[in-house]
Amino acid sequence: MEDTVKRFKEHLEKMRAIDHASGVLYYDSDTVMPKANAEAFGRTMSYLSGEGYKLGTAPELRGYIDAILAAPDKVDYITLREAQELHRQFAKLERIPIEVFTEYSELCSKAQLVWMEAKVDNDYAAFEPYLSKIVAMTRQMAEYTDPDMEPYNAVLDGYERGLTMEVLDEFFALLRNKLAPLVHEVMERGRKLDTSFLKQNFSIDKQRELSKYLMEVMCLPMDRCTIGEVEHPFTTGFSKYDVRITTHYHEDMMASNVFSVIHEGGHALYEANIADELTYSPVLGGGVSMSIHESRSRFFENIIGRSPEYVNLIYPKIVELFPEQLKGISSEQFWLAINESRPSLIRTEADELTYTLHIMVRYELEKRLIAGTLSTKDLPAAWDEMYREYLGIEVPNDKEGVLQDSHWSGGMIGYFPSYALGSAYSAQFRHSMQKDMDVSAQIASGDLHPIVAWLTERIYRFGGLKTPKDIIRDATGEDFDPNYYIDYLTEKYRRIYELDK
Amino acid sequence: MEDTVKRFKEHLEKMRAIDHASGVLYYDSDTVMPKANAEAFGRTMSYLSGEGYKLGTAPELRGYIDAILAAPDKVDYITLREAQELHRQFAKLERIPIEVFTEYSELCSKAQLVWMEAKVDNDYAAFEPYLSKIVAMTRQMAEYTDPDMEPYNAVLDGYERGLTMEVLDEFFALLRNKLAPLVHEVMERGRKLDTSFLKQNFSIDKQRELSKYLMEVMCLPMDRCTIGEVEHPFTTGFSKYDVRITTHYHEDMMASNVFSVIHEGGHALYEANIADELTYSPVLGGGVSMSIHESRSRFFENIIGRSPEYVNLIYPKIVELFPEQLKGISSEQFWLAINESRPSLIRTEADELTYTLHIMVRYELEKRLIAGTLSTKDLPAAWDEMYREYLGIEVPNDKEGVLQDSHWSGGMIGYFPSYALGSAYSAQFRHSMQKDMDVSAQIASGDLHPIVAWLTERIYRFGGLKTPKDIIRDATGEDFDPNYYIDYLTEKYRRIYELDK
Repeated sequence: MEDTVKRFKEHLEKMRAIDHASGVLYYDSDTVMPKANAEAFGRTMSYLSGEGYKLGTAPELRGYIDAILAAPDKVDYITLREAQELHRQFAKLERIPIEVFTEYSELCSKAQLVWMEAKVDNDYAAFEPYLSKIVAMTRQMAEYTDPDMEPYNAVLDGYERGLTMEVLDEFFALLRNKLAPLVHEVMERGRKLDTSFLKQNFSIDKQRELSKYLMEVMCLPMDRCTIGEVEHPFTTGFSKYDVRITTHYHEDMMASNVFSVIHEGGHALYEANIADELTYSPVLGGGVSMSIHESRSRFFENIIGRSPEYVNLIYPKIVELFPEQLKGISSEQFWLAINESRPSLIRTEADELTYTLHIMVRYELEKRLIAGTLSTKDLPAAWDEMYREYLGIEVPNDKEGVLQDSHWSGGMIGYFPSYALGSAYSAQFRHSMQKDMDVSAQIASGDLHPIVAWLTERIYRFGGLKTPKDIIRDATGEDFDPNYYIDYLTEKYRRIYELDK
Repeated sequence: MEDTVKRFKEHLEKMRAIDHASGVLYYDSDTVMPKANAEAFGRTMSYLSGEGYKLGTAPELRGYIDAILAAPDKVDYITLREAQELHRQFAKLERIPIEVFTEYSELCSKAQLVWMEAKVDNDYAAFEPYLSKIVAMTRQMAEYTDPDMEPYNAVLDGYERGLTMEVLDEFFALLRNKLAPLVHEVMERGRKLDTSFLKQNFSIDKQRELSKYLMEVMCLPMDRCTIGEVEHPFTTGFSKYDVRITTHYHEDMMASNVFSVIHEGGHALYEANIADELTYSPVLGGGVSMSIHESRSRFFENIIGRSPEYVNLIYPKIVELFPEQLKGISSEQFWLAINESRPSLIRTEADELTYTLHIMVRYELEKRLIAGTLSTKDLPAAWDEMYREYLGIEVPNDKEGVLQDSHWSGGMIGYFPSYALGSAYSAQFRHSMQKDMDVSAQIASGDLHPIVAWLTERIYRFGGLKTPKDIIRDATGEDFDPNYYIDYLTEKYRRIYELDK
């Protein structure tokens, strides 16, 4: 068994190296690489994903896994969990023919670059053939991996184990029934908030300085965490010693960068605080699931980042950097402005209250695309109609509509629901944390270490060791309950808009 | 044969992908990656170099090569040249056991990071064990690859085919005999040049702007060429569509960045102007040899970059960016200042005339290290002594002495002579170019395209298709002759220092 475990670990090390190399190439393509090099980039990513596929489906790996699972008491717990997780993924992956898998990876690499240009040029037609192929191949792969499941359920399961349309239909219905009246009340009876001062000229150099400050306040280890600049921010990590957030700067929207940094910083804290013994595991070294990961980022972005105590904490630095622009504006006014709720076009710029409506649009569209009841040719029209229906606004162009997100171009169909679930989880974690400390007072003190320590103890350090379900249950003492999220939003927005006065 | 060529090309494509991935990881480690991630970086580079080694020594590759070389008239010329080059390298590579090769790659990855810190900390002792091991393994590998050669000759041959200590001993002797008297004459009889205005405070943001301008003046394609910031500048390229120069900024030394950009830009022009049909070839897609590559960079850095016409051309932009610092300084004064010759500590900051003395020190030391007549423990003392002997200066610390260059930490023993050869080649190319155009007048006109076109036609486009010897002969009509270099330097420095007045 000792020899089997040794070979198993050597095999995992190769998988880690491939993940690392692909991850760095991807990061590089978004931050440094000239677009002209798309051909070589696509070919290299295709080679690496082919190698990763070979490693992930190698008969010898299957042998190690079977041997370990047959004698679970003879190996350490981490090794056992690695074998279990791989066993679960193996069954899926080995059903996809390598040509299909390689073609898909190459397609996504190219599609991402096409999407970047299409977005700049507002040219959906240029991107549509790629998206059409991505949808078809996503469905095709779901049919390979889970022939007995609805394809979209198989896709969802890839991001959050056990997640189905049935669960999401219920979840979104609950949000709709409870939150929709609140959104309407805000629109009709809420006071008017002044946000004009957020739309001024804010020097990008000063914004960069602010980003560094925000990273420090949220306890990111600056010797292990970097910040890059991209079109659509994301976080990536190659071990707990190399975690990278990215952001974007707009001269006329300072708040956009602020909340990108805090959101991505939330992801980065998770990656940076995983247990030492897990960080080089390609199986358990990342976050447990997309939704738990999103709960970590949205916890920081919204529950901490948009709280009055946090705004009060960072506001002096913001005023120091932009004294002219913020002359006469109080911390309270700033807090109200960054919490303004108003149906809008861009998901990443949406306020906390209407955000889930953006997710609902994407969820409904993905469901129909994968089911084959909507074609990618008709997608922009369907998108625009749903924004009219759910958010009550007209989409002026595809750039601010269907082309706004990078996800689909990278093959990430089925990911969006994680954002909504993540928001709901984060409210439940907040509720639970309150039992151990006065969260608001802790934020007000300026020392966020106890909050990070609480999350490290209950979530971060476990990486992929536990299931998402167990993470929630162990951290909060109960199963997932979306009512915490509804309660949290209701209380927050009734206060902001003075609905009870 | 058609099928053999197809498989041969598929094999080469894998080699290209591995080169590309390793190259991006290396670039990333120097520009973005936190140093804390050295462990994962070293492991991933080790995996990739192991895969590259396996591909480079695969029995099936040997089979394709043999088949192609047995029927050279049945394949296109590029394929034939690829097979010939690989055949040459194969014989060397297949003699190194894979464990040795992998260990060496991993060692170099780690050593580079150790060197970076050691340089900052002025701590040679921290780096010495790594260098000692690199020297030992370099010798060990030379013994594997070329058991019948002197190890240092084998090492030299790896960078410039056929180069030997005999050739270099002669070459350096010639430079010493002809240039040493000139250096002494400059020191003793030359006029005093004012360089004080180069040592002021030059904002790094403005220097960054200047870098972009310089890249444009030298006809670098800005949609395919990027600039990054590192400790020790280098150039890398992953195809002609993704060429990357790097530079470093010092607030008190504006000229340092200027000539880094022009030097690295010279390398980049080579990579960016290779023929389309060669750019994805892992065998022929780069420059033909280190010395030819260095001749391209030194051609731009010195022969163009430090000419009075070029300085006159770019000076208005420099004054526009730094009007306070350069008030009352003429273009002629600036030109004289950046050509001041004075023995100095740092190779990369050395003037054109004394530069080869720095190379001589490294050449002599490398020879002794590999021969085993000098130990790495005694290296700093030997270094300091040679600087005293050749350059007449005292080395105050290892940071500005033996730790100054990155090359040895990356395993690049045997590379330094390329710089001296490159300088000598570049003077010969200048002489030859003059037959087709008035080079000085062309520079003065501000349009460098004809110069780049001349070089593209005769050097760049061929990539690794020709031998270095043929490149020189075809471009200049004769074999390498170092006297052009001596003549060029003599004329230039007698003029600058008014030795004939």
